[in-house]
Amino acid sequence: MVSSRPAAGARSRPVSLRRRGPVLERAILEAALEQLSRVGWNGLTMEGVAAGAQTGKAAVYRRWPSKEDLVADALQAGLPTFGEAPDHGSVREDLYQLCRRMRDAMYSLPGAALRAVVHECDGPTAERFHGLIFSGVIEPSNRLFGEVVCRGIQRGDVRPDATGELVFDVIPALMMYRSKMCASEWPDEDIAEMIDRVMVPLLRARPV
Amino acid sequence: MVSSRPAAGARSRPVSLRRRGPVLERAILEAALEQLSRVGWNGLTMEGVAAGAQTGKAAVYRRWPSKEDLVADALQAGLPTFGEAPDHGSVREDLYQLCRRMRDAMYSLPGAALRAVVHECDGPTAERFHGLIFSGVIEPSNRLFGEVVCRGIQRGDVRPDATGELVFDVIPALMMYRSKMCASEWPDEDIAEMIDRVMVPLLRARPV
Repeated sequence: MVSSRPAAGARSRPVSLRRRGPVLERAILEAALEQLSRVGWNGLTMEGVAAGAQTGKAAVYRRWPSKEDLVADALQAGLPTFGEAPDHGSVREDLYQLCRRMRDAMYSLPGAALRAVVHECDGPTAERFHGLIFSGVIEPSNRLFGEVVCRGIQRGDVRPDATGELVFDVIPALMMYRSKMCASEWPDEDIAEMIDRVMVPLLRARPV
Repeated sequence: MVSSRPAAGARSRPVSLRRRGPVLERAILEAALEQLSRVGWNGLTMEGVAAGAQTGKAAVYRRWPSKEDLVADALQAGLPTFGEAPDHGSVREDLYQLCRRMRDAMYSLPGAALRAVVHECDGPTAERFHGLIFSGVIEPSNRLFGEVVCRGIQRGDVRPDATGELVFDVIPALMMYRSKMCASEWPDEDIAEMIDRVMVPLLRARPV
């Protein structure tokens, strides 16, 4: 993941630091993520990104002909790495750990940039970014949910038909909804409450 | 609810139609909803609203000193009316009917305007609109979900502890999430699938 840069940099006068190639490119991508997370898709300008990366506008345009191309590469560079599915022997604990990882990714700088794009973009721009978000965020996290649920089914603490997209969407949907509507930042105790009040009852095997 | 106006009106030259008082105000509020649903919070301008309402900018500013004031009144005027909770004798059918009503409100012109504001606004602006959305949309719809669930508990087809905000948030959260991430417009069959695969298993009473 690309790390944060101080926002103050965005306000200083562009200064050539004589960086070249990958080092300069990385600084530009980081500045793009910082701009996205702070001023959103609509507020992001190539000038602002150049200032944030302490380079000139030409250095940005030379590599990325449009704001859309730049943002696509910046989001790609900032995609979270999800690792392996947790395996603690209970669906409750595994989901809890997985949700904490998702929360950390969501509130990282690249996560904030991704959310800005999700919320603001419509039309053909949205389609391009949604493709990236699907393959880089939704599919990998759904795969981990799927693994956790499958192990639960094998163990017998999850009902065998608790699979499918709609079930796997409940956690990211609640996380997005309450982040937007209640400004929730999903502290650990709220994650635990979501698992206990929603996911465990939704998934649990019915006694026969 | 305030109804739709042709988008073409926004592009024509302002013409005084000599409307006064409530008639002109209503036209301005309708134009504001139309602008919000089409170009969002960031794209909305007082000039655009005036053009859409076929009046002058001064007529808008005379009533609403800021874009924020105008949008707050437009959203208020367009709030959905939810009516009584459905009561068909089964939690499945009641939730299905309630979700169809929510979907219709969500994809109406005022619903699209509300979603634009939810997604785009941050900071103090967001707080003001969130208050309106809470009291005008979330609280009334949660009250209806609560009634449907309570009747289910009394009938015995819903578990007694299936109450609380997080459970009631699952439906609006899934509707918002899949509308954003999958461009779903929630046709009836998708609503039925959400009820059958998520809500019925989440709510149902456990056999003893």
